[in-house]
Amino acid sequence: MIRLGISGYGNLGRGVEAAVMHNPDIELKVIFTRRDPETIKPITKGVKVDRVENASEYKDDIDVLILCGGSATDLPRQTPEFATMFNVVDSFDTHANIPQHFDEVNKKAEENGKVALISCGWDPGMFSIARVYADSVLPGGETYTFWGKGVSQGHSDAIRRVEGVLDARQYTVPVQAALDAVRSGSNPVLTTRQKHTRECYVVAAEGADKARIEKEIKEMPNYFADYDTTVNFISQEELDAKHKGIPHGGFVIRSGKTGAENEFDNVIEYSLKLDSNPAFTSSVLVSYARAVARLHKEGRKGCVTVLDIPPAYLSAKSGAELRKSML
Amino acid sequence: MIRLGISGYGNLGRGVEAAVMHNPDIELKVIFTRRDPETIKPITKGVKVDRVENASEYKDDIDVLILCGGSATDLPRQTPEFATMFNVVDSFDTHANIPQHFDEVNKKAEENGKVALISCGWDPGMFSIARVYADSVLPGGETYTFWGKGVSQGHSDAIRRVEGVLDARQYTVPVQAALDAVRSGSNPVLTTRQKHTRECYVVAAEGADKARIEKEIKEMPNYFADYDTTVNFISQEELDAKHKGIPHGGFVIRSGKTGAENEFDNVIEYSLKLDSNPAFTSSVLVSYARAVARLHKEGRKGCVTVLDIPPAYLSAKSGAELRKSML
Repeated sequence: MIRLGISGYGNLGRGVEAAVMHNPDIELKVIFTRRDPETIKPITKGVKVDRVENASEYKDDIDVLILCGGSATDLPRQTPEFATMFNVVDSFDTHANIPQHFDEVNKKAEENGKVALISCGWDPGMFSIARVYADSVLPGGETYTFWGKGVSQGHSDAIRRVEGVLDARQYTVPVQAALDAVRSGSNPVLTTRQKHTRECYVVAAEGADKARIEKEIKEMPNYFADYDTTVNFISQEELDAKHKGIPHGGFVIRSGKTGAENEFDNVIEYSLKLDSNPAFTSSVLVSYARAVARLHKEGRKGCVTVLDIPPAYLSAKSGAELRKSML
Repeated sequence: MIRLGISGYGNLGRGVEAAVMHNPDIELKVIFTRRDPETIKPITKGVKVDRVENASEYKDDIDVLILCGGSATDLPRQTPEFATMFNVVDSFDTHANIPQHFDEVNKKAEENGKVALISCGWDPGMFSIARVYADSVLPGGETYTFWGKGVSQGHSDAIRRVEGVLDARQYTVPVQAALDAVRSGSNPVLTTRQKHTRECYVVAAEGADKARIEKEIKEMPNYFADYDTTVNFISQEELDAKHKGIPHGGFVIRSGKTGAENEFDNVIEYSLKLDSNPAFTSSVLVSYARAVARLHKEGRKGCVTVLDIPPAYLSAKSGAELRKSML
């Protein structure tokens, strides 16, 4: 049995707890929280809940700790710190800062003989894997990543900060014509606007100037200005009824040529369609916790990413079983 | 530079030669053949061609040898034999015999300090990887593999053995309704007949009994009896004009549940659309030759499969480059 800990009991932490139930070789032992432990009621029987400050007391009780904090402020601090005591898995997803995060975590993990896997989930994560495989096995080509249809928390939050907005949900939607062009093998050059649209569902305060809100959203730099954005004003009741889920997904598509004269077209496509983004991310984290436990057993130390892990390490099945039934 | 050898210069061997052109860090040094070397005219400048019996003379000249023989009789003999002298990659694809082939190759490779990667390509190969990842990150679900639309050489050959048939091409076609059912997340139970149909294009000898030929094809056990099969009689000219290519591809789809109460549906899909089956297979083999060269450098020995290789090992890019640009 692999003994697991969770740090942080939000959407992701609860998702990890649920994912453990699908993995009979993994056992949840403890949840660390910044809240009052008394307020946390895990679903799993017999799981301890303790303050995150007491984590060091559990050094010998768990094989892998999954860090379920946010990438903005939690993980840059937590992952290096916890990698001094535990084998860890995090879902750090600020793409531009991955190299720096890697170096900081690697130093601590190496010094302390631990394995730390960072930037796990689906993007970065399964999509990164799809990109590297496709790029490697079909070097003569182009790779495209599309996201959605799905909820972007960051964009939803940005809308909520507009004056007069009570609540909001933003969907990122891939443009069908762009998907079709990529799948045709034409290797199109696509602008940001051509790849995705943004659909916003907004609850405005009574008497708020909706025209001004719509304009502010559509012109918001980085978030919306480069996209075709639609803004739909709806009631809080409708938002709660129809837009409470956190679905997501997307497509990694590579098209490329083979043959001595580039005479053959090929398209590789990997896609995800997820009812719940955090529930799937958690499920990925748990399978990588298994891989991390194995690497640690083999004497490996330092920081790794999903690109460094053989597929077989994720599976509860043995090598011989996999060769027989899945190869 | 990784120095590569090819054994066997058929469709696959020529495909490997072409694939090397897309990989600037890999250099083709020698082609081994059972034919008269004088009859082989490689496209690549400066490549030696020699009899396969002389292969041992090249032990120190190449880092990896890609074996491009057939799975029926060539590879079961060749892979263990060559693994005594070279790091090797093969595309052994008789699924049921993989465990035995693995053991035989492993013994020889271990004894001689070589790395041997077997059963590489797209199925077994990229599809196996897709199955293992999907099964591991989404344990609560079912995985389905569909092949096609594409040419099955084995089925085409089987038709050619029917009396009165001069030439034939067989396409395996996934059933759209089955694909739709799987993508819907309903985890349907599908019979062989429900998953694929078989389309045959047949050139009959003049005066041959077409009704008898069609009946014999449709009732052929293992090959056609379990499928809805259509037989189209066409001229040799039409076959040559429209059915000379060797396209293939397919889909690995997993649908499964996440959430503490299995309340969320998820669909993972990996698909390939290939103008030329051997050209793509070759391209995969070459990227795994890079991985094998690296494993050998690290001191690894014995038999491995694609399931044992981290994605990053396939790429010409460094770990830091991959983390920066592709993670």
